[in-house]
Order: sequence, then structure tokens, then C-alpha cells
Amino acid sequence: MARTALTATAEAPVPNGTLVCPYFHEAIELLGKRWSGAIVHELLAGPRRFSALSHSIPQISDRLLSIRLKELEACGIVTREVYEDSPVRVDYALTPKGRALEPSLKAIGAWARTWLHD
Amino acid sequence: MARTALTATAEAPVPNGTLVCPYFHEAIELLGKRWSGAIVHELLAGPRRFSALSHSIPQISDRLLSIRLKELEACGIVTREVYEDSPVRVDYALTPKGRALEPSLKAIGAWARTWLHD
Repeated sequence: MARTALTATAEAPVPNGTLVCPYFHEAIELLGKRWSGAIVHELLAGPRRFSALSHSIPQISDRLLSIRLKELEACGIVTREVYEDSPVRVDYALTPKGRALEPSLKAIGAWARTWLHD
Repeated sequence: MARTALTATAEAPVPNGTLVCPYFHEAIELLGKRWSGAIVHELLAGPRRFSALSHSIPQISDRLLSIRLKELEACGIVTREVYEDSPVRVDYALTPKGRALEPSLKAIGAWARTWLHD
């Protein structure tokens, strides 16, 4: 990997190493937050209702799922679509920023299958 | 992304969704653990002494860096190489399992530069 790819150019280099890019750091901690990656992965397949997400990730409590969806919405990865049916239907979907995470999640999935599967 | 890529095949499907593969989940939470991704990223450039890692990631305390290195060592991503110099020199390096994370970190870095940079 090119060293410039993940390192901050605005910061002064330090001996025998470079400062980690804050955007890279922010991205990886965002995805690694408990269940956030799993939620984004699930939404890559298409919009989901809250109950469907809850079924797909049975280990997550409804309270935490709600918190994570609000966080992902706040950072522009997930959007909440309300349909005026009766009863009102709410779908969660990925924004373009969220869908752009597909190659990252795919690469992590490939690594996991190769190195964690045994 | 193929739905089979990140989903568990041994589990029964649930309505309007599938169970998230536990290996994918384990991988993304491992990488997203505070500073773990940054440490692996730094080691992709080559072996580093503890002090160099500490300089490259100035926000991490020595205590937490030590804990994270032990965790990454325990799961086979990092190896600790001791050289019998005087004083003894200790380098931290990636194992093949650790180096195989490069495409994942590269993809996350690319996403971060595009979507978090403004």
C-alpha cells in the first residue's frame, strides 16, 4: 500500500513512522463500533424495516439497534424513509455514502472467511 | 455484493434478511477496536519498535498500545521479534494473516478519503 494512502500529509512526519490519517481512523472506528458494520452489511442487500434488521442481527437489542441507526443516519450513511401507509411503514436504507462502503465490507468479509474460518 | 459472501450459511434464514456471518462480525469489530486498525496500518509499512508505534499514534497511551499489541499477537495478526542486541531490541511485525488485511485497510482508507475528507 502506498504510504501516502492512509497517512496524514498535513502533519509533520515522526521518526520511523508517520501519523495515521484521522479520516482513516474515524472510518475504521465507525465501522467497528459494536454492530455498525453488521447493520451496514445487512442494508447493502436493500432497504429494511426495523423489525427485519432486528431479526437479521438477533444479538442486538432494539434499544442499541435504534441508537446505531440514529448514529449512522447522523453521519449520512443511513437514511430513514417513511411511507404513509396504514400503519405507517419506516424503511432504513443506505445513502450513496453508505453504499460506497461495499468494497470495504467485501474485503473484510473475504479476509474473515480466509483467516478466521478454521 | 453476493449475499452469500458475508452471511452465515449454517444458520437458518430469517424473514426479510439473513444472519450476519459471525466471522465478518468478528473481523470488523477486531479492526474497529480503538486504535487496532491504526496499529495494523502502521505495521503494513514494516516492522516497528514500540517507541516508533507510540510516536506514530501519539493519541494512544503506552499502556493501551501494549494491550492492543498483545491482543493482536494473541489472534495471530502481530508477531513480536526479539533481537539479542545490547540493549535488547524488540520489533513488532505483521504475520501473513496481518499482512492479508492490506486490501481491507486500503478500501477503508479510500472510502474515508472520498467521503470524510470534506
